[in-house]
Amino acid sequence: MKLLHYGPLGQEKPGMLDKDGRIRDLSGKVANFAGSTLLPESLDALRAIDPMTLPLIEGNPRLGACVAGTGKFICIGLNYSDHAAETGATVPPEPIIFMKATSAIVGPNDPVEIPRGSLKTDWEVELGVVIGKTAKYVSEAEAMDYVAGYCVINDVSERAFQAERQGQWTKGKSCDTFGPTGPWLVTADEIDDPQNLKMHLEVNGRKFQDGSTKTMIYGVRYLVSYLSQFMSLLPGDIISTGTPPGVGLGQKPNIFLKAGDVVTLGIEGLGMQRQEFYQG
Amino acid sequence: MKLLHYGPLGQEKPGMLDKDGRIRDLSGKVANFAGSTLLPESLDALRAIDPMTLPLIEGNPRLGACVAGTGKFICIGLNYSDHAAETGATVPPEPIIFMKATSAIVGPNDPVEIPRGSLKTDWEVELGVVIGKTAKYVSEAEAMDYVAGYCVINDVSERAFQAERQGQWTKGKSCDTFGPTGPWLVTADEIDDPQNLKMHLEVNGRKFQDGSTKTMIYGVRYLVSYLSQFMSLLPGDIISTGTPPGVGLGQKPNIFLKAGDVVTLGIEGLGMQRQEFYQG
Repeated sequence: MKLLHYGPLGQEKPGMLDKDGRIRDLSGKVANFAGSTLLPESLDALRAIDPMTLPLIEGNPRLGACVAGTGKFICIGLNYSDHAAETGATVPPEPIIFMKATSAIVGPNDPVEIPRGSLKTDWEVELGVVIGKTAKYVSEAEAMDYVAGYCVINDVSERAFQAERQGQWTKGKSCDTFGPTGPWLVTADEIDDPQNLKMHLEVNGRKFQDGSTKTMIYGVRYLVSYLSQFMSLLPGDIISTGTPPGVGLGQKPNIFLKAGDVVTLGIEGLGMQRQEFYQG
Repeated sequence: MKLLHYGPLGQEKPGMLDKDGRIRDLSGKVANFAGSTLLPESLDALRAIDPMTLPLIEGNPRLGACVAGTGKFICIGLNYSDHAAETGATVPPEPIIFMKATSAIVGPNDPVEIPRGSLKTDWEVELGVVIGKTAKYVSEAEAMDYVAGYCVINDVSERAFQAERQGQWTKGKSCDTFGPTGPWLVTADEIDDPQNLKMHLEVNGRKFQDGSTKTMIYGVRYLVSYLSQFMSLLPGDIISTGTPPGVGLGQKPNIFLKAGDVVTLGIEGLGMQRQEFYQG
Protein backbone atom coordinates (compact mmCIF):
# COMPACT_ATOMS: atom_id res chain seq x y z
CA MET A 1 0.00 0.00 0.00
CA LYS A 2 0.98 3.59 -0.58
CA LEU A 3 -0.43 5.54 2.36
CA LEU A 4 -0.46 9.31 2.55
CA HIS A 5 -1.94 12.37 4.15
CA TYR A 6 -3.56 14.99 1.95
CA GLY A 7 -5.11 18.38 2.54
CA PRO A 8 -4.15 21.75 4.01
CA LEU A 9 -1.59 21.99 6.82
CA GLY A 10 -3.16 20.93 10.09
CA GLN A 11 -6.25 19.51 8.37
CA GLU A 12 -4.70 16.51 6.64
CA LYS A 13 -6.78 13.42 6.00
CA PRO A 14 -5.53 9.90 5.43
CA GLY A 15 -5.60 8.40 2.00
CA MET A 16 -4.13 5.65 -0.11
CA LEU A 17 -3.24 5.37 -3.76
CA ASP A 18 -5.37 3.13 -5.94
CA LYS A 19 -3.97 1.02 -8.79
CA ASP A 20 -4.17 4.01 -11.11
CA GLY A 21 -2.19 6.21 -8.70
CA ARG A 22 -5.19 8.27 -7.67
CA ILE A 23 -5.85 9.27 -4.07
CA ARG A 24 -8.64 7.44 -2.28
CA ASP A 25 -9.97 8.82 0.98
CA LEU A 26 -9.43 6.67 4.07
CA SER A 27 -10.84 9.11 6.61
CA GLY A 28 -13.85 6.86 7.12
CA LYS A 29 -11.51 4.10 8.30
CA VAL A 30 -8.65 5.71 10.24
CA ALA A 31 -7.83 9.15 11.63
CA ASN A 32 -4.27 9.22 10.32
CA PHE A 33 -1.14 7.11 10.01
CA ALA A 34 0.24 7.35 13.51
CA GLY A 35 0.79 5.11 16.51
CA SER A 36 -1.44 2.06 16.61
CA THR A 37 -2.66 2.57 13.03
CA LEU A 38 0.82 1.45 11.98
CA LEU A 39 0.68 -1.86 13.84
CA PRO A 40 0.90 -4.92 11.58
CA GLU A 41 -2.72 -5.92 12.31
CA SER A 42 -3.94 -2.40 11.57
CA LEU A 43 -2.13 -2.36 8.23
CA ASP A 44 -3.53 -5.81 7.44
CA ALA A 45 -7.04 -4.45 8.02
CA LEU A 46 -6.36 -1.61 5.58
CA ARG A 47 -4.91 -4.05 3.09
CA ALA A 48 -8.21 -5.92 3.07
CA ILE A 49 -10.00 -2.84 1.72
CA ASP A 50 -10.48 -2.53 -2.02
CA PRO A 51 -9.27 1.02 -2.73
CA MET A 52 -11.75 1.29 -5.61
CA THR A 53 -14.57 1.24 -3.05
CA LEU A 54 -13.18 4.33 -1.30
CA PRO A 55 -14.11 7.93 -2.22
CA LEU A 56 -11.94 9.27 -5.03
CA ILE A 57 -10.18 12.55 -4.33
CA GLU A 58 -10.15 14.76 -7.40
CA GLY A 59 -7.54 17.33 -8.22
CA ASN A 60 -4.07 17.62 -6.87
CA PRO A 61 -4.19 18.37 -3.15
CA ARG A 62 -1.21 19.24 -1.01
CA LEU A 63 0.41 16.23 0.63
CA GLY A 64 1.39 16.24 4.28
CA ALA A 65 4.13 14.13 5.79
CA CYS A 66 3.14 10.49 5.29
CA VAL A 67 3.51 9.66 9.00
CA ALA A 68 1.84 11.52 11.86
CA GLY A 69 2.61 11.61 15.56
CA THR A 70 6.29 10.84 15.11
CA GLY A 71 7.92 10.72 18.54
CA LYS A 72 11.51 10.24 17.40
CA PHE A 73 13.19 11.26 14.20
CA ILE A 74 16.47 9.36 14.41
CA CYS A 75 19.16 9.91 11.82
CA ILE A 76 22.20 7.85 10.95
CA GLY A 77 25.33 9.80 10.13
CA LEU A 78 27.89 8.96 7.47
CA ASN A 79 26.15 5.71 6.55
CA TYR A 80 27.34 5.53 2.95
CA SER A 81 31.03 4.85 2.50
CA ASP A 82 31.33 7.16 -0.49
CA HIS A 83 29.47 9.99 1.33
CA ALA A 84 31.76 9.63 4.34
CA ALA A 85 34.68 9.98 1.95
CA GLU A 86 33.31 13.15 0.31
CA THR A 87 32.94 14.88 3.68
CA GLY A 88 36.46 13.87 4.66
CA ALA A 89 35.25 11.54 7.43
CA THR A 90 36.23 7.93 7.94
CA VAL A 91 33.72 5.09 7.96
CA PRO A 92 32.39 4.80 11.52
CA PRO A 93 33.00 1.44 13.24
CA GLU A 94 29.42 1.50 14.50
CA PRO A 95 26.45 3.69 13.54
CA ILE A 96 26.55 7.37 14.41
CA ILE A 97 23.11 8.47 15.57
CA PHE A 98 21.61 11.86 16.14
CA MET A 99 18.12 13.29 16.39
CA LYS A 100 16.28 15.64 14.13
CA ALA A 101 13.53 17.66 15.83
CA THR A 102 10.09 16.28 15.02
CA SER A 103 8.98 19.89 14.56
CA ALA A 104 11.08 19.89 11.37
CA ILE A 105 8.73 17.43 9.66
CA VAL A 106 6.75 18.81 6.70
CA GLY A 107 5.06 17.50 3.60
CA PRO A 108 7.13 16.28 0.67
CA ASN A 109 6.45 19.29 -1.52
CA ASP A 110 6.15 22.01 1.10
CA PRO A 111 8.46 25.01 0.80
CA VAL A 112 11.62 24.77 2.90
CA GLU A 113 12.88 27.68 4.95
CA ILE A 114 16.51 28.71 4.85
CA PRO A 115 16.81 29.82 8.48
CA ARG A 116 17.97 33.27 9.45
CA GLY A 117 21.71 33.36 9.76
CA SER A 118 22.13 30.32 7.54
CA LEU A 119 25.27 30.18 5.45
CA LYS A 120 25.32 26.56 4.34
CA THR A 121 21.90 24.99 3.77
CA ASP A 122 22.41 21.62 2.12
CA TRP A 123 20.42 18.60 0.93
CA GLU A 124 20.47 14.84 1.63
CA VAL A 125 18.19 12.28 -0.01
CA GLU A 126 17.59 9.46 2.46
CA LEU A 127 15.64 6.26 2.87
CA GLY A 128 13.24 6.69 5.79
CA VAL A 129 12.24 3.62 7.78
CA VAL A 130 8.93 3.89 9.64
CA ILE A 131 8.54 1.79 12.76
CA GLY A 132 5.27 -0.16 13.08
CA LYS A 133 5.63 -1.95 16.41
CA THR A 134 7.47 -1.25 19.65
CA ALA A 135 11.01 -2.58 19.34
CA LYS A 136 13.24 -3.07 22.36
CA TYR A 137 16.34 -5.27 22.43
CA VAL A 138 15.32 -6.96 19.19
CA SER A 139 17.71 -9.20 17.26
CA GLU A 140 18.69 -8.68 13.64
CA ALA A 141 16.76 -11.85 12.78
CA GLU A 142 13.47 -10.35 13.98
CA ALA A 143 14.18 -6.69 13.23
CA MET A 144 12.23 -6.48 9.98
CA ASP A 145 9.01 -7.45 11.78
CA TYR A 146 9.09 -3.99 13.37
CA VAL A 147 9.19 -2.04 10.11
CA ALA A 148 5.85 -0.68 8.87
CA GLY A 149 7.29 0.71 5.69
CA TYR A 150 9.52 3.18 3.93
CA CYS A 151 9.47 6.72 2.63
CA VAL A 152 11.63 9.39 1.05
CA ILE A 153 13.21 11.96 3.35
CA ASN A 154 15.20 15.05 2.58
CA ASP A 155 17.47 15.41 5.61
CA VAL A 156 17.97 19.13 5.02
CA SER A 157 21.07 20.27 6.88
CA GLU A 158 22.71 23.56 7.76
CA ARG A 159 26.40 22.71 7.71
CA ALA A 160 27.62 25.76 9.62
CA PHE A 161 25.05 25.18 12.38
CA GLN A 162 25.93 21.48 12.34
CA ALA A 163 29.70 21.68 12.47
CA GLU A 164 30.88 25.21 13.25
CA ARG A 165 28.55 26.21 16.11
CA GLN A 166 29.83 23.98 18.92
CA GLY A 167 27.63 20.99 18.18
CA GLN A 168 25.98 18.77 18.35
CA TRP A 169 24.77 17.96 14.84
CA THR A 170 21.14 18.24 15.88
CA LYS A 171 21.63 22.01 15.82
CA GLY A 172 22.04 21.97 12.05
CA LYS A 173 19.42 19.32 11.38
CA SER A 174 16.36 20.49 13.29
CA CYS A 175 15.33 23.79 11.74
CA ASP A 176 11.65 24.16 10.86
CA THR A 177 10.78 22.48 7.53
CA PHE A 178 14.13 20.60 7.43
CA GLY A 179 12.38 17.23 7.30
CA PRO A 180 10.23 16.75 4.19
CA THR A 181 8.73 13.25 4.58
CA GLY A 182 6.81 11.36 1.93
CA PRO A 183 4.98 11.48 -0.47
CA TRP A 184 3.92 8.01 0.64
CA LEU A 185 4.48 5.54 3.39
CA VAL A 186 5.05 2.47 1.23
CA THR A 187 4.34 -0.60 3.33
CA ALA A 188 7.19 -3.05 3.76
CA ASP A 189 5.47 -5.82 1.75
CA GLU A 190 5.83 -3.70 -1.40
CA ILE A 191 9.60 -3.33 -1.13
CA ASP A 192 11.42 -6.51 -2.08
CA ASP A 193 14.83 -5.36 -0.94
CA PRO A 194 15.33 -2.07 0.89
CA GLN A 195 19.07 -2.44 0.24
CA ASN A 196 18.67 -2.20 -3.49
CA LEU A 197 16.81 1.02 -4.22
CA LYS A 198 18.05 3.69 -6.56
CA MET A 199 17.96 7.22 -5.17
CA HIS A 200 18.54 10.61 -6.71
CA LEU A 201 18.42 14.33 -5.98
CA GLU A 202 18.55 17.34 -8.26
CA VAL A 203 18.95 21.06 -7.59
CA ASN A 204 17.31 23.26 -10.21
CA GLY A 205 17.23 20.23 -12.50
CA ARG A 206 20.94 19.40 -12.18
CA LYS A 207 21.57 15.96 -10.72
CA PHE A 208 23.79 15.96 -7.63
CA GLN A 209 22.97 12.68 -5.94
CA ASP A 210 22.67 9.46 -7.94
CA GLY A 211 23.11 6.51 -5.62
CA SER A 212 21.60 3.35 -4.28
CA THR A 213 20.79 2.00 -0.85
CA LYS A 214 23.10 -0.82 -1.94
CA THR A 215 26.10 1.17 -0.72
CA MET A 216 24.64 1.75 2.75
CA ILE A 217 27.15 0.67 5.40
CA TYR A 218 24.67 -0.35 8.11
CA GLY A 219 21.48 -1.68 6.54
CA VAL A 220 17.90 -1.37 7.74
CA ARG A 221 17.85 -4.72 9.52
CA TYR A 222 21.02 -3.93 11.43
CA LEU A 223 19.93 -0.40 12.31
CA VAL A 224 16.54 -1.40 13.76
CA SER A 225 18.22 -4.01 15.95
CA TYR A 226 21.09 -1.70 16.88
CA LEU A 227 18.93 1.27 17.85
CA SER A 228 16.60 -0.93 19.86
CA GLN A 229 19.52 -1.73 22.17
CA PHE A 230 19.68 1.94 23.15
CA MET A 231 16.01 2.93 23.26
CA SER A 232 12.56 1.61 22.50
CA LEU A 233 11.50 2.35 18.95
CA LEU A 234 7.78 3.16 18.87
CA PRO A 235 5.18 3.05 16.08
CA GLY A 236 5.55 6.22 14.02
CA ASP A 237 9.21 6.71 14.86
CA ILE A 238 11.29 7.38 11.77
CA ILE A 239 14.85 6.30 11.11
CA SER A 240 16.52 8.31 8.37
CA THR A 241 19.29 6.04 7.22
CA GLY A 242 21.89 8.38 5.80
CA THR A 243 22.70 9.81 2.40
CA PRO A 244 24.77 8.75 -0.59
CA PRO A 245 27.42 11.05 -2.10
CA GLY A 246 26.62 14.31 -3.85
CA VAL A 247 25.68 16.75 -1.11
CA GLY A 248 26.56 20.41 -1.44
CA LEU A 249 29.32 20.10 1.13
CA GLY A 250 30.93 17.49 -1.10
CA GLN A 251 31.20 19.78 -4.13
CA LYS A 252 34.42 21.56 -4.99
CA PRO A 253 33.83 24.38 -4.41
CA ASN A 254 30.92 23.82 -1.99
CA ILE A 255 27.44 24.59 -3.26
CA PHE A 256 24.68 25.59 -0.85
CA LEU A 257 21.04 26.42 -1.33
CA LYS A 258 19.65 29.92 -1.79
CA ALA A 259 16.15 31.33 -1.94
CA GLY A 260 14.34 30.26 -5.10
CA ASP A 261 16.28 27.03 -5.56
CA VAL A 262 14.17 23.98 -6.30
CA VAL A 263 15.21 20.59 -5.02
CA THR A 264 13.70 17.40 -6.43
CA LEU A 265 14.46 13.97 -5.07
CA GLY A 266 13.18 10.44 -5.12
CA ILE A 267 13.80 6.81 -4.29
CA GLU A 268 12.82 3.86 -6.48
CA GLY A 269 9.29 2.76 -5.60
CA LEU A 270 8.83 5.43 -2.95
CA GLY A 271 7.92 8.43 -5.08
CA MET A 272 9.25 11.95 -5.50
CA GLN A 273 9.55 15.18 -3.53
CA ARG A 274 9.91 18.76 -4.74
CA GLN A 275 10.77 21.70 -2.50
CA GLU A 276 11.24 25.35 -3.27
CA PHE A 277 13.56 27.04 -0.79
CA TYR A 278 12.85 30.47 0.67
CA GLN A 279 14.66 32.81 3.03
CA GLY A 280 13.28 32.77 6.59
CA MET B 1 0.74 26.64 40.66
CA LYS B 2 2.24 23.21 41.08
CA LEU B 3 0.76 21.07 38.32
CA LEU B 4 1.20 17.33 38.12
CA HIS B 5 -0.06 14.08 36.67
CA TYR B 6 -1.04 11.29 39.04
CA GLY B 7 -2.18 7.71 38.62
CA PRO B 8 -0.98 4.49 37.01
CA LEU B 9 1.23 4.58 33.92
CA GLY B 10 -0.84 5.39 30.87
CA GLN B 11 -3.86 6.42 32.94
CA GLU B 12 -2.51 9.58 34.50
CA LYS B 13 -4.90 12.37 35.42
CA PRO B 14 -4.07 16.05 35.85
CA GLY B 15 -3.92 17.54 39.31
CA MET B 16 -2.59 20.48 41.22
CA LEU B 17 -1.31 20.92 44.72
CA ASP B 18 -3.42 22.88 47.18
CA LYS B 19 -1.97 25.19 49.84
CA ASP B 20 -1.50 22.22 52.14
CA GLY B 21 0.45 20.25 49.53
CA ARG B 22 -2.37 17.81 48.84
CA ILE B 23 -3.32 16.71 45.34
CA ARG B 24 -6.53 18.15 43.91
CA ASP B 25 -8.04 16.58 40.83
CA LEU B 26 -8.15 18.75 37.70
CA SER B 27 -9.53 16.12 35.33
CA GLY B 28 -12.87 17.94 35.22
CA LYS B 29 -11.07 20.98 33.78
CA VAL B 30 -8.27 19.75 31.49
CA ALA B 31 -7.18 16.43 29.98
CA ASN B 32 -3.52 16.84 30.86
CA PHE B 33 -0.67 19.35 30.79
CA ALA B 34 0.29 19.26 27.16
CA GLY B 35 0.18 21.52 24.14
CA SER B 36 -2.41 24.24 24.31
CA THR B 37 -3.13 23.62 28.02
CA LEU B 38 0.28 25.19 28.64
CA LEU B 39 -0.53 28.44 26.82
CA PRO B 40 -0.44 31.53 29.06
CA GLU B 41 -4.21 32.04 28.79
CA SER B 42 -4.87 28.39 29.66
CA LEU B 43 -2.68 28.62 32.74
CA ASP B 44 -4.42 31.87 33.71
CA ALA B 45 -7.74 30.05 33.56
CA LEU B 46 -6.42 27.35 35.88
CA ARG B 47 -5.00 29.99 38.19
CA ALA B 48 -8.50 31.40 38.63
CA ILE B 49 -9.69 28.12 40.17
CA ASP B 50 -9.68 27.79 43.95
CA PRO B 51 -7.92 24.44 44.50
CA MET B 52 -9.98 23.88 47.65
CA THR B 53 -13.08 23.53 45.44
CA LEU B 54 -11.51 20.63 43.52
CA PRO B 55 -11.84 16.95 44.51
CA LEU B 56 -9.20 15.93 47.03
CA ILE B 57 -7.11 12.89 46.09
CA GLU B 58 -6.41 10.76 49.13
CA GLY B 59 -3.42 8.54 49.60
CA ASN B 60 -0.11 8.70 47.84
CA PRO B 61 -0.60 7.91 44.16
CA ARG B 62 2.19 7.40 41.67
CA LEU B 63 3.20 10.59 39.87
CA GLY B 64 3.71 10.68 36.12
CA ALA B 65 5.95 13.12 34.29
CA CYS B 66 4.55 16.60 34.95
CA VAL B 67 4.35 17.44 31.23
CA ALA B 68 2.63 15.35 28.57
CA GLY B 69 2.96 15.33 24.81
CA THR B 70 6.51 16.60 24.82
CA GLY B 71 7.67 16.89 21.22
CA LYS B 72 11.27 17.86 21.91
CA PHE B 73 13.47 17.09 24.89
CA ILE B 74 16.41 19.40 24.28
CA CYS B 75 19.45 19.24 26.52
CA ILE B 76 22.27 21.69 27.02
CA GLY B 77 25.72 20.17 27.41
CA LEU B 78 28.44 21.36 29.77
CA ASN B 79 26.43 24.36 30.92
CA TYR B 80 28.01 24.73 34.35
CA SER B 81 31.60 25.88 34.34
CA ASP B 82 32.56 23.66 37.27
CA HIS B 83 30.89 20.58 35.68
CA ALA B 84 32.72 21.22 32.40
CA ALA B 85 35.94 21.28 34.41
CA GLU B 86 35.21 17.97 36.18
CA THR B 87 34.65 16.18 32.86
CA GLY B 88 37.87 17.63 31.45
CA ALA B 89 36.04 19.75 28.88
CA THR B 90 36.46 23.45 28.27
CA VAL B 91 33.61 25.95 28.59
CA PRO B 92 31.85 26.03 25.23
CA PRO B 93 31.79 29.42 23.46
CA GLU B 94 28.11 28.89 22.67
CA PRO B 95 25.59 26.35 23.96
CA ILE B 96 26.07 22.70 23.06
CA ILE B 97 22.69 21.16 22.33
CA PHE B 98 21.60 17.57 21.92
CA MET B 99 18.32 15.70 22.09
CA LYS B 100 17.09 13.15 24.55
CA ALA B 101 14.45 10.77 23.17
CA THR B 102 10.98 11.70 24.40
CA SER B 103 10.42 7.97 24.96
CA ALA B 104 12.88 8.27 27.88
CA ILE B 105 10.44 10.42 29.87
CA VAL B 106 9.04 8.81 33.04
CA GLY B 107 7.57 9.91 36.33
CA PRO B 108 9.82 11.44 39.00
CA ASN B 109 9.81 8.36 41.23
CA ASP B 110 9.55 5.61 38.65
CA PRO B 111 12.25 2.95 38.63
CA VAL B 112 15.07 3.58 36.18
CA GLU B 113 16.46 0.84 33.95
CA ILE B 114 20.18 0.30 33.61
CA PRO B 115 20.17 -0.78 29.97
CA ARG B 116 21.65 -4.07 28.84
CA GLY B 117 25.29 -3.65 28.06
CA SER B 118 25.59 -0.57 30.23
CA LEU B 119 28.91 0.00 31.93
CA LYS B 120 28.63 3.60 33.05
CA THR B 121 25.12 4.70 34.04
CA ASP B 122 25.36 8.13 35.65
CA TRP B 123 23.17 10.87 37.09
CA GLU B 124 22.63 14.59 36.44
CA VAL B 125 20.25 16.84 38.36
CA GLU B 126 18.99 19.55 36.00
CA LEU B 127 16.58 22.45 35.87
CA GLY B 128 13.94 21.70 33.25
CA VAL B 129 12.31 24.59 31.41
CA VAL B 130 8.86 23.86 29.98
CA ILE B 131 7.81 25.88 26.94
CA GLY B 132 4.32 27.38 27.03
CA LYS B 133 4.02 29.17 23.71
CA THR B 134 5.53 28.68 20.26
CA ALA B 135 8.87 30.47 20.15
CA LYS B 136 10.62 31.23 16.88
CA TYR B 137 13.37 33.82 16.45
CA VAL B 138 12.56 35.39 19.81
CA SER B 139 14.84 37.93 21.44
CA GLU B 140 16.31 37.59 24.90
CA ALA B 141 14.10 40.47 26.02
CA GLU B 142 10.92 38.55 25.22
CA ALA B 143 12.20 35.01 25.85
CA MET B 144 10.69 34.58 29.32
CA ASP B 145 7.18 35.10 27.93
CA TYR B 146 7.51 31.67 26.32
CA VAL B 147 8.27 29.77 29.52
CA ALA B 148 5.31 28.01 31.16
CA GLY B 149 7.31 26.84 34.13
CA TYR B 150 10.04 24.70 35.59
CA CYS B 151 10.61 21.19 36.84
CA VAL B 152 13.27 18.84 38.13
CA ILE B 153 14.89 16.49 35.62
CA ASN B 154 17.36 13.69 36.13
CA ASP B 155 19.27 13.61 32.84
CA VAL B 156 20.32 9.99 33.34
CA SER B 157 23.31 9.27 31.10
CA GLU B 158 25.24 6.20 30.00
CA ARG B 159 28.77 7.53 29.60
CA ALA B 160 30.13 4.64 27.53
CA PHE B 161 27.19 4.86 25.12
CA GLN B 162 27.58 8.64 25.08
CA ALA B 163 31.29 8.94 24.49
CA GLU B 164 32.81 5.59 23.53
CA ARG B 165 30.33 4.26 20.99
CA GLN B 166 30.94 6.63 18.07
CA GLY B 167 28.48 9.31 19.09
CA GLN B 168 26.54 11.33 19.12
CA TRP B 169 25.68 11.97 22.76
CA THR B 170 22.00 11.20 22.16
CA LYS B 171 23.00 7.52 22.14
CA GLY B 172 23.85 7.64 25.84
CA LYS B 173 21.00 9.94 26.84
CA SER B 174 17.91 8.36 25.31
CA CYS B 175 17.52 4.97 26.97
CA ASP B 176 14.05 4.13 28.27
CA THR B 177 13.40 5.71 31.70
CA PHE B 178 16.45 8.00 31.40
CA GLY B 179 14.29 11.12 31.76
CA PRO B 180 12.49 11.35 35.13
CA THR B 181 10.50 14.60 34.94
CA GLY B 182 8.69 16.22 37.85
CA PRO B 183 7.20 15.91 40.42
CA TRP B 184 5.57 19.21 39.47
CA LEU B 185 5.45 21.71 36.71
CA VAL B 186 5.87 24.84 38.80
CA THR B 187 4.52 27.77 36.85
CA ALA B 188 6.95 30.58 36.11
CA ASP B 189 5.14 33.11 38.30
CA GLU B 190 6.16 31.08 41.38
CA ILE B 191 9.88 31.22 40.65
CA ASP B 192 11.37 34.62 41.39
CA ASP B 193 14.74 33.91 39.83
CA PRO B 194 15.44 30.70 37.91
CA GLN B 195 19.15 31.57 38.12
CA ASN B 196 19.25 31.31 41.88
CA LEU B 197 17.92 27.87 42.79
CA LYS B 198 19.80 25.41 44.94
CA MET B 199 19.99 21.88 43.55
CA HIS B 200 21.20 18.62 44.98
CA LEU B 201 21.49 14.90 44.24
CA GLU B 202 22.28 11.95 46.47
CA VAL B 203 23.08 8.32 45.72
CA ASN B 204 22.09 5.95 48.51
CA GLY B 205 21.91 8.93 50.79
CA ARG B 206 25.39 10.26 50.05
CA LYS B 207 25.38 13.74 48.56
CA PHE B 208 27.19 14.00 45.22
CA GLN B 209 25.74 17.14 43.65
CA ASP B 210 25.26 20.30 45.69
CA GLY B 211 25.02 23.25 43.37
CA SER B 212 22.96 26.19 42.25
CA THR B 213 21.57 27.40 38.97
CA LYS B 214 23.60 30.50 39.78
CA THR B 215 26.67 28.91 38.16
CA MET B 216 24.88 28.11 34.90
CA ILE B 217 26.88 29.49 31.97
CA TYR B 218 23.99 30.15 29.60
CA GLY B 219 20.86 31.05 31.56
CA VAL B 220 17.23 30.27 30.80
CA ARG B 221 16.53 33.59 29.08
CA TYR B 222 19.51 33.20 26.79
CA LEU B 223 18.78 29.54 26.01
CA VAL B 224 15.16 30.07 24.99
CA SER B 225 16.18 32.85 22.65
CA TYR B 226 19.20 30.94 21.35
CA LEU B 227 17.35 27.71 20.63
CA SER B 228 14.51 29.56 18.95
CA GLN B 229 16.99 30.73 16.29
CA PHE B 230 17.52 27.11 15.26
CA MET B 231 14.04 25.63 15.60
CA SER B 232 10.55 26.49 16.80
CA LEU B 233 10.04 25.65 20.44
CA LEU B 234 6.50 24.36 20.97
CA PRO B 235 4.28 24.15 24.04
CA GLY B 236 5.31 21.09 26.01
CA ASP B 237 8.87 21.06 24.74
CA ILE B 238 11.39 20.71 27.56
CA ILE B 239 14.82 22.26 27.79
CA SER B 240 17.06 20.51 30.28
CA THR B 241 19.64 23.13 31.11
CA GLY B 242 22.68 21.15 32.18
CA THR B 243 24.08 19.87 35.43
CA PRO B 244 26.35 21.22 38.16
CA PRO B 245 29.44 19.30 39.33
CA GLY B 246 29.28 15.98 41.11
CA VAL B 247 28.34 13.43 38.49
CA GLY B 248 29.74 9.89 38.71
CA LEU B 249 32.09 10.55 35.81
CA GLY B 250 33.62 13.38 37.83
CA GLN B 251 34.56 11.17 40.81
CA LYS B 252 38.06 9.84 41.26
CA PRO B 253 37.77 6.95 40.71
CA ASN B 254 34.55 7.10 38.67
CA ILE B 255 31.38 5.89 40.35
CA PHE B 256 28.51 4.52 38.30
CA LEU B 257 25.08 3.21 39.20
CA LYS B 258 24.25 -0.43 39.80
CA ALA B 259 21.00 -2.29 40.37
CA GLY B 260 19.47 -1.43 43.74
CA ASP B 261 21.00 2.02 43.98
CA VAL B 262 18.61 4.76 44.99
CA VAL B 263 19.02 8.27 43.62
CA THR B 264 17.29 11.24 45.23
CA LEU B 265 17.43 14.72 43.81
CA GLY B 266 15.71 18.06 44.06
CA ILE B 267 15.73 21.72 43.18
CA GLU B 268 14.65 24.54 45.48
CA GLY B 269 10.91 25.16 45.08
CA LEU B 270 10.49 22.43 42.47
CA GLY B 271 10.24 19.33 44.66
CA MET B 272 12.08 16.06 44.89
CA GLN B 273 12.58 12.87 42.89
CA ARG B 274 13.54 9.38 44.02
CA GLN B 275 14.49 6.55 41.68
CA GLU B 276 15.55 3.01 42.33
CA PHE B 277 17.75 1.61 39.59
CA TYR B 278 17.33 -1.91 38.19
CA GLN B 279 19.12 -3.98 35.61
CA GLY B 280 17.30 -4.17 32.25
